[in-house]
Amino acid sequence: MQSVHIASAYDEELKFLSKRIAAMGGHAERMVEQAIAALVNADLGLAQKVIQDDLVLDEGQREIDDKAIIIIARRQPMATDLREIVGAIRISADIERVGDLGKNVAKRVASVDGRQPNSLFRGLEALANLALTQLKEVLDVYASRSVERIGFVRDRDDQIDAMYTSLFRELLTYMMEDPRNITPCTHLLFCAKNIERIGDHATNIAETIYYIVTGDQMPADRPKGDKTDQVVLPGMVPAK
Amino acid sequence: MQSVHIASAYDEELKFLSKRIAAMGGHAERMVEQAIAALVNADLGLAQKVIQDDLVLDEGQREIDDKAIIIIARRQPMATDLREIVGAIRISADIERVGDLGKNVAKRVASVDGRQPNSLFRGLEALANLALTQLKEVLDVYASRSVERIGFVRDRDDQIDAMYTSLFRELLTYMMEDPRNITPCTHLLFCAKNIERIGDHATNIAETIYYIVTGDQMPADRPKGDKTDQVVLPGMVPAK
Repeated sequence: MQSVHIASAYDEELKFLSKRIAAMGGHAERMVEQAIAALVNADLGLAQKVIQDDLVLDEGQREIDDKAIIIIARRQPMATDLREIVGAIRISADIERVGDLGKNVAKRVASVDGRQPNSLFRGLEALANLALTQLKEVLDVYASRSVERIGFVRDRDDQIDAMYTSLFRELLTYMMEDPRNITPCTHLLFCAKNIERIGDHATNIAETIYYIVTGDQMPADRPKGDKTDQVVLPGMVPAK
Repeated sequence: MQSVHIASAYDEELKFLSKRIAAMGGHAERMVEQAIAALVNADLGLAQKVIQDDLVLDEGQREIDDKAIIIIARRQPMATDLREIVGAIRISADIERVGDLGKNVAKRVASVDGRQPNSLFRGLEALANLALTQLKEVLDVYASRSVERIGFVRDRDDQIDAMYTSLFRELLTYMMEDPRNITPCTHLLFCAKNIERIGDHATNIAETIYYIVTGDQMPADRPKGDKTDQVVLPGMVPAK
């Protein structure tokens, strides 16, 4: 059969990669949504589900890697197709990491008692919504290959970083008010950091799509907006 | 010239990837060593150097990616060589992330005043030494392809996670003792997490080497030892 429909079988193989990545992306989005819902509602059952769901993405990434290498070996693709295939390897690695980050949030649910102020959970939800919107739109660009729409990514990345910085300050302040807040708020800090990283992976994916479509790298010096490494609240003096 | 020495030119191209990765690995190790030294000695100048040094790894990864794709397109490699080339792409991505993690530690130097107890800094140094030893030995295995020696990786990964968990607890305790410790110790917590992640990337690299040499994946369910997501210190009750 293959000898009769070589080109179309090849097309099918490339389409398989794209479809598999779209499915992985949808799965990762749901994991993150559910991890945040589990955190906000102190829902240990849902958290457990998210943790188990991560295996699907590990499996997906492995499948794409194996398939990609078989396609390269068998089809000896030309430049554009090769970028498509290598791009699929990179994007599936980023999606797999997004799933890990969702899982990390879920694993902290049991260590947060849900008695922290509502504003903190609303803040985390808002941050997660922004990061998920970023991820969804980037995956839409991947599906359509409409790379000219990719400009939104940098702007929203800056918004995510600004929101993360403000949440970071709020969490530190809350920890200083009462030592009983320190343990749960430390876990929430790591959750916030995990969500902020999801935005970074969405940006990585955008860069890979740009590379797939144009053959060029997006400029390297993308502004890094996470400024929390410089956050110092009252009560200590930074080193000179 | 190429037509005369095709095979040997091809070998040279593959060797180039290995050499470039060895150089990137050495660079990443130095960055992490210097980031820790900058943190322990509150050396802002050294921290600044580390931050700038990260560009070298970004550049290195891009060069390896570009070169790898050119080699695949031009040489249409068979299975073993293809694994070698795809492995180089993966390993350089992990090394680039190790550099990022070193840079993240360096960026926090200005926010830590160095007045925290010596034991915390000794703990961070010990954790970093363990993670760096892991990275060095994994890169040695890459250079020698002696994949039968790779068993050490899992054990040391467990040690790194255990040491990280103990440091995590110590930092939380210290934050509870005095609110003035909260800001600097939060930054030290993120530094510790960054160092622990270096160990994870070393493990990723080991898995890639195993794949390059054997063509198989190492079993997926590697035990995840970071248990800090379950650390709850006195002063709060976890959700039921």
